[in-house]
Amino acid sequence: MPSVEEIRSASLAALMRAGVSREDAETQLSLLMEAELRGIASHGMLRLPRVIDRIANGVTSPVAKGRGEWRGEALLDVDGEQGLGPVVASRALDLICERARRTGIAAAAIRNCDHLGMLAWYAEQVAGKGQVLIAFTVSEALVHPWGGRQALLGTNPIAIGVPAEPAPFVFDMATSLVSMGKIHDHANRGAAIPEGWALDADGNATTDATAAKSGAIAPFGGAKGYALGLAFELLVTSLAASAIGRDVRGTLDATHPCNKGDLFIVLEPAHGASHVVAGFMDEIRQSSPIDPDAPVRIPGDRAQSTRARRIDQDIALPGEVWQRILTLAGQTRPYVVQGDF
Amino acid sequence: MPSVEEIRSASLAALMRAGVSREDAETQLSLLMEAELRGIASHGMLRLPRVIDRIANGVTSPVAKGRGEWRGEALLDVDGEQGLGPVVASRALDLICERARRTGIAAAAIRNCDHLGMLAWYAEQVAGKGQVLIAFTVSEALVHPWGGRQALLGTNPIAIGVPAEPAPFVFDMATSLVSMGKIHDHANRGAAIPEGWALDADGNATTDATAAKSGAIAPFGGAKGYALGLAFELLVTSLAASAIGRDVRGTLDATHPCNKGDLFIVLEPAHGASHVVAGFMDEIRQSSPIDPDAPVRIPGDRAQSTRARRIDQDIALPGEVWQRILTLAGQTRPYVVQGDF
Repeated sequence: MPSVEEIRSASLAALMRAGVSREDAETQLSLLMEAELRGIASHGMLRLPRVIDRIANGVTSPVAKGRGEWRGEALLDVDGEQGLGPVVASRALDLICERARRTGIAAAAIRNCDHLGMLAWYAEQVAGKGQVLIAFTVSEALVHPWGGRQALLGTNPIAIGVPAEPAPFVFDMATSLVSMGKIHDHANRGAAIPEGWALDADGNATTDATAAKSGAIAPFGGAKGYALGLAFELLVTSLAASAIGRDVRGTLDATHPCNKGDLFIVLEPAHGASHVVAGFMDEIRQSSPIDPDAPVRIPGDRAQSTRARRIDQDIALPGEVWQRILTLAGQTRPYVVQGDF
Repeated sequence: MPSVEEIRSASLAALMRAGVSREDAETQLSLLMEAELRGIASHGMLRLPRVIDRIANGVTSPVAKGRGEWRGEALLDVDGEQGLGPVVASRALDLICERARRTGIAAAAIRNCDHLGMLAWYAEQVAGKGQVLIAFTVSEALVHPWGGRQALLGTNPIAIGVPAEPAPFVFDMATSLVSMGKIHDHANRGAAIPEGWALDADGNATTDATAAKSGAIAPFGGAKGYALGLAFELLVTSLAASAIGRDVRGTLDATHPCNKGDLFIVLEPAHGASHVVAGFMDEIRQSSPIDPDAPVRIPGDRAQSTRARRIDQDIALPGEVWQRILTLAGQTRPYVVQGDF
């Protein structure tokens, strides 16, 4: 198994070989590696070969950083120009974080950039520097409305970051019950999926993971989760003038430009709030659990402990993903870029 | 059963007798009546006697409208001065809606006002005038963390309003599985509650509604709903510098000043978005349903059809609520204020 450093070196070489600058490659890589380290494999290194395939196919730009225009003093409208998700989004986020220090709140509505990846990555950066972030993004239609048979909605995640000492509250979640990645994982292993997860292509309930791949995933939490996912999609589309519903092209393929939207809202918290937030999180962690062996968790706690455990270990990347990365890097075996990155 | 007009007349008289101006009484009343008409009895007219008891007890001000201060150009900090929820909130909302027309986005963080009531009421007004609203509020601790035994979190609802033709998308929901009002309703009827709704005071699962009244309600959607409710509480408290967790005093009693917080965010949508939103909602409504007799619904559709049905009918208010309103109005029998309000 490769080490974190070996994966980073090869991935950096692969992205730069595809025409991405070193700085932007590091941004893209930081996002994917953080997901990998937190145990979110679906948003981790396995995404890298597709990013590079998309660049090779001309549907993702290796150099675009997005073009922003202020619509009013606190709302930044961004055309992502098919740039890399974290490159376009980080740039927009930097601008609105700076603006919000003066205006108290600022937002960026982004269209036409690639997959943003794990939203917690953005929330952690913003909250770590003392501001609140609410982030939304939209995916291709994979989720059925509550009571409906067809995939009409994206998995439409939300992330919220709130400053706290010593570490911020950082949380993200999709509004689908499970990810399409998890369905694919079951199909690859020939395993059945639990009842209630998905419908097949005809809109009938199924436990066959392969049938579910061409069907629809359930929203989480029944009618309420459906309502939330729908509301987030309408919200993002209204602000970003991006595609909606079945018109949304995501980044699950390597052949179509992505036309989904994203929305970031940054707010300046009240003075002293971070101590109140930290105290409340500790009160919850220390409260009496149902299962004496399972302490009450704050969202993000598990991801952080997974990260702490993995950071010094080799990474159990699927062999074919690692081989693809090496091939894309022009290497036939593990190779370490020397230097100080 | 009293008519809508009879209830409005008596309620207006009762509020004005308690020292509320006619204009503010109409605001408070519009909110409660709209909830009643939509079938949300828990947020309807039954709240009026408590509002007036709270004024009589000096914990709610009949005249305060809140004191606002801009923290930056687009963030309004509001001390509600214990005023009526819809009076303080509507005033703050008017200010940030106007501001957002120029800045693109603006927010109000409010502390120390009474119950905001049905959040959809605010979302409908804002979206009806062409802007997007995201609204959050916090309640007293009634909900247990996922995996925990104690009520540590509020029911922490969210509302989102998005402009569309001919009617906006308007949706609100609590992050609890059910409302405490529903638990009380079961207890009053001596009915059991379904498994999974609540814990008793010792943190054990119960189907005894009376035991649940002093216990904790479950979050909706398991760990995800818990995470959302927690995130919303941290978000509101961070912005409004309001109370958190078990320190939150709501308006379920008539004896304590309310110290919860609220957060409104208003955004200017992209040009032409309302047609896209409307078209997508219709696509969902017309999509194939699981149950041929139950068309796929957009959140808010049922509330609107209930409203349309009830608006011309007498209202089935519980007898004791109607009698209390009449008594508070200084009337011993139904009485109609003449005039053009």
